[in-house]
Amino acid sequence: MAVYTEVTDEALCAFLEAYPIGELVAFRGIAEGVENSNYQLKTTGGDFILTLYEKRVDPTELPWFLGLMRHLAAHGVECPQPVSGRDGEALRELAGRPAAICTFLPGVWPRRVRGEHAAPLGDALAGLHLAGQGYAATRANALGPLGWQPLLGLCRKDGDSVQPGLIAELDAALAGILAAWPAPGSLPEGHIHADLFPDNVFFLEDEAGKPRISGLIDFYFACTDLLAYDLAVCLNAWCFEPDYSFNVTRASAMIRAYSARRPLLPAERAALPVLCRGAALRFLLTRLFDWVNTPPGAMVTRKDPLEYMRKLRFFLSAETPEAIGG
Amino acid sequence: MAVYTEVTDEALCAFLEAYPIGELVAFRGIAEGVENSNYQLKTTGGDFILTLYEKRVDPTELPWFLGLMRHLAAHGVECPQPVSGRDGEALRELAGRPAAICTFLPGVWPRRVRGEHAAPLGDALAGLHLAGQGYAATRANALGPLGWQPLLGLCRKDGDSVQPGLIAELDAALAGILAAWPAPGSLPEGHIHADLFPDNVFFLEDEAGKPRISGLIDFYFACTDLLAYDLAVCLNAWCFEPDYSFNVTRASAMIRAYSARRPLLPAERAALPVLCRGAALRFLLTRLFDWVNTPPGAMVTRKDPLEYMRKLRFFLSAETPEAIGG
Repeated sequence: MAVYTEVTDEALCAFLEAYPIGELVAFRGIAEGVENSNYQLKTTGGDFILTLYEKRVDPTELPWFLGLMRHLAAHGVECPQPVSGRDGEALRELAGRPAAICTFLPGVWPRRVRGEHAAPLGDALAGLHLAGQGYAATRANALGPLGWQPLLGLCRKDGDSVQPGLIAELDAALAGILAAWPAPGSLPEGHIHADLFPDNVFFLEDEAGKPRISGLIDFYFACTDLLAYDLAVCLNAWCFEPDYSFNVTRASAMIRAYSARRPLLPAERAALPVLCRGAALRFLLTRLFDWVNTPPGAMVTRKDPLEYMRKLRFFLSAETPEAIGG
Repeated sequence: MAVYTEVTDEALCAFLEAYPIGELVAFRGIAEGVENSNYQLKTTGGDFILTLYEKRVDPTELPWFLGLMRHLAAHGVECPQPVSGRDGEALRELAGRPAAICTFLPGVWPRRVRGEHAAPLGDALAGLHLAGQGYAATRANALGPLGWQPLLGLCRKDGDSVQPGLIAELDAALAGILAAWPAPGSLPEGHIHADLFPDNVFFLEDEAGKPRISGLIDFYFACTDLLAYDLAVCLNAWCFEPDYSFNVTRASAMIRAYSARRPLLPAERAALPVLCRGAALRFLLTRLFDWVNTPPGAMVTRKDPLEYMRKLRFFLSAETPEAIGG
């Protein structure tokens, strides 16, 4: 469920008057997404997405996100474009929340990942990293390595209720990951998506029936960090089968396509195993935090943290880049 | 959350090949609705809604619902139209569920009901009843008076956990309602929507800025029953303020507009109080059943049954049609 804030039709009509996008035609909540409230908005001017930013998004960071989306689109990345109002502003308030209208992207996110998604994804990720280069402002990764220890601390009290021994296992894993993490400045940095899961990637078929990427969405975890870490997030999110076996063919295709557009340095390739462990730990920790901090009756999808425990264990066992397709 | 069944892009593409509606452009889950899975579907042929019918809908009844929607649209009601495939069939299977594509209706459902919604609603309801007259097949109301005693029986064991004394209060109310219920044949019958809540009614503004109804949706509770009972459902669903006070001005406007298009018989007007009690009890009972039978962790919106206890008590206290705007 991704409608946390309801918008009255009166408030919506008043809000839309600020935009030169025609008359309201339709307005439906979108089921996908868990962080913000998203509505599909149709006006006589076309299709749009209206997003109300919920409490996990810091309003002061929204200009950075919207600016990044603008910059990326100007440099060839298919991603939602913030629509400016008549006053030139893209960001205003609706129903007590910061809100923005963005352009609508065609495409369908893959409910079941297939091998042929891997290369387009790797290529698009490299394209995203290259296109981001000229965007000067930076944003620290609040969910990067420096954030993992505090996050684990917040799960310490109740974490073992999810699985006995979980916290001790995570303490050991975290220590190992931090010890092996690339030193600052040792790998290329840039703006990364940091959450490029299948539901944030739209595909359409080309003339030959092959999937091609029609757009990337949801840049609200984007930040400035190691470029290869973004690839590690994708290896976590796209390369496991439903039984948690790792599809090294798919991983290899993704990494190869990435490297064809933005060649990975030898040091980046060598770091892939620890970056993948770190990415698995990052999603495990936020899911675990949500799990132990969400009241059972709350209308929020709690994602299973143990899914990422299985992924983390796999990456802990993978000692070389080759073992994960690199 | 109204996506219970996920559809892979492969299955979707194969499914769409059965329809002459062009190429897939976009596919997003819709947040609204609680019974079925609904997707907004965009193709090169336009906008559509794809519905996967979930377990509460009896597949053998789907042809009746789709036939009613076709009949109503052919007689001037703005409602979704089932789209036939190349084989002439509107109903087929997708992801293991019965599924149909319907036309997309413009409009926005009112998150906050205002007085000016009441007359258009009453008028549209009467129009729906008149348009339904020529649809020969009937469907019994499984959630009508004959169903209330068994439903209450299924809540008997755990119902008082929601509020002490609740079951005894409902037993007494049900006995009174059934004793006063109009005798078979004493009031006009026809096809009713039976669930015309605000989220099933789309509005757009006319040139003067007044809301006009652009469409009615979700006919999957439709059945053949007392026409005035449908009005009683609307009085329950549209005429209470957020603090559960009854807005008799709004009710009166709704009834007047209904009667202007399809004049209520004196006997129907006289029956409105007991019909309103029955409608309140019907929604109370299904919500109570869901409440006591839904595991706390389930990803389903459990609606508060006690909201309808307050409405039921109001209608029990209203002895005359005038007290409820009739």
